[in-house]
Amino acid sequence: MVSSESLEMSLDLPPGWTEKYIGVNTRYVAEKESNTEMGAQALQSALNSAGMTIGDLDCLIAGAATFDHVIPNRSSLVKAAFEGAEWYDFPCVDINTVCTSFITALDYASLLLHVGSYETIAIVTSEISSKGIDPANTETYCLFGDCATAVILTQGENGGLIHHSQKTYSEGARNTIIEGGGNQFHPRDFPYEPSLYSFKMDGRKLLKIANQHLAEFIDIFFQSSSTDLQDVDWIVPHQASKLGLRMLCGLNGIEENKVINQLADYGNCIAASIPLALITSIEQGRVKENDTCFLIGTAAGMSISGLLFKYTTS
Amino acid sequence: MVSSESLEMSLDLPPGWTEKYIGVNTRYVAEKESNTEMGAQALQSALNSAGMTIGDLDCLIAGAATFDHVIPNRSSLVKAAFEGAEWYDFPCVDINTVCTSFITALDYASLLLHVGSYETIAIVTSEISSKGIDPANTETYCLFGDCATAVILTQGENGGLIHHSQKTYSEGARNTIIEGGGNQFHPRDFPYEPSLYSFKMDGRKLLKIANQHLAEFIDIFFQSSSTDLQDVDWIVPHQASKLGLRMLCGLNGIEENKVINQLADYGNCIAASIPLALITSIEQGRVKENDTCFLIGTAAGMSISGLLFKYTTS
Repeated sequence: MVSSESLEMSLDLPPGWTEKYIGVNTRYVAEKESNTEMGAQALQSALNSAGMTIGDLDCLIAGAATFDHVIPNRSSLVKAAFEGAEWYDFPCVDINTVCTSFITALDYASLLLHVGSYETIAIVTSEISSKGIDPANTETYCLFGDCATAVILTQGENGGLIHHSQKTYSEGARNTIIEGGGNQFHPRDFPYEPSLYSFKMDGRKLLKIANQHLAEFIDIFFQSSSTDLQDVDWIVPHQASKLGLRMLCGLNGIEENKVINQLADYGNCIAASIPLALITSIEQGRVKENDTCFLIGTAAGMSISGLLFKYTTS
Repeated sequence: MVSSESLEMSLDLPPGWTEKYIGVNTRYVAEKESNTEMGAQALQSALNSAGMTIGDLDCLIAGAATFDHVIPNRSSLVKAAFEGAEWYDFPCVDINTVCTSFITALDYASLLLHVGSYETIAIVTSEISSKGIDPANTETYCLFGDCATAVILTQGENGGLIHHSQKTYSEGARNTIIEGGGNQFHPRDFPYEPSLYSFKMDGRKLLKIANQHLAEFIDIFFQSSSTDLQDVDWIVPHQASKLGLRMLCGLNGIEENKVINQLADYGNCIAASIPLALITSIEQGRVKENDTCFLIGTAAGMSISGLLFKYTTS
């Protein structure tokens, strides 16, 4: 865990700057762990909670933006990290809508359960941003944290997915970017430009685009859903930024006391933010059996995704 | 287009070596195009063939292993490459099961059409391997080619998905790998080791694992399907390698004249191999209306995926 106090000392920032401007007090940073190891640990922990073993899974979906290796995909590596993984041949698939990857994976898994392709599906979201953030960019360096989460889904009698929607607004396509690492700036060809491999974000532009679209997105979402916004028990947003969370609380009559906000404790954990907020809230007893949860987030690309579901364990 | 003759000259290989051992005569290499540009061109071409414009799409799925940038996802960049993209807010999602990403994307798109989430979905598969292949590794350098494809799917009256299956065999998880570029060997930390950013494949081990599982995979696939293997009109395999294609032709009574084999013309185009073989066969008039096609491939991770569908344009 890295406190904002220690970050402020190392970056020569005034005491209290991070809390005031970024809204983050503590974040976790992977020192030696890989995305794969963190993801496997999170999955083992979820299996323990469910009283299952890896052999009970029918499918593993990794929904995330960051990764250990370019090839193979994240989910195959997480599976292979389990002892005896070669005895189980369940399929491994990656889904990526950047910060909202968990929402997309949850919709995909719900579809697969709905049509009966599988009975038990795990979604692993493991994100390490700390290796790709430039200390010179204080806004992002103080905002992000590393995190892995896992959830296990089964076909239940009640509950489950109520509604899902994603929209991609291309005017913001390049306002959140890691330019290097792929074919446009291949590491073989650009060895001496570390800034190419760092995360870049035009926070102001992104907030402006989100502000233009978010209220309408939520309006249309609930017009198309069988549940009204005021009947939602919990709103679980992507912990994108202090200003982003503040903007959401003012929209469409959203009540602030229903919004899960843990930005101060964990920072922005990319796609792991939403499942972390959800899991923490369940563990704390805030989100209860039969509660209706609205997951909502913005993502690089630029997309807004929303998913409404009823939480049940039976 | 790069001929094997010219490759053999530049690599100081005996004339005819590439055809004899790799089975590839020509492959295409992106000189200045990006994954995004190639993907957008392929999508424009598919839209033209369908008499559609970008505004007719309800969803864009990118199914591929390679990419231009680490963030955002591939599909968002392909959409944004279209003039006026900001006027359309259809969602962009990436799916990655490496070489079988098109199969997984096709199954996902079929599900989304089946439940009525969308009416018109495009799948873009754009792969550039040439930037990440080491000339010192002749086996892979002579095998791979660059390619982008796009298909457009709509809910039809007849036809569509018959059966899909994927299995992941973890004993081969690390036999196909690009180690660097992600968090394990981050380009910021390993600037001076270009071999880290190159594709590595243990072809012999992969063939052995495929040989252990492929016949049984196909057996179980058709036991679970309403159509028998002998009633399939076309088998469209991933163009993984000369030996891989030869192995497939000997299995389960598969008739060689039903197997689409274009390895010699295009090389292994990662996830674009299967859709390229399918599209080419449709354009050549081999695959006809109401034909049943069995897509089958192996992928890094290591996975085998199969998908059976009836091709219709109405």
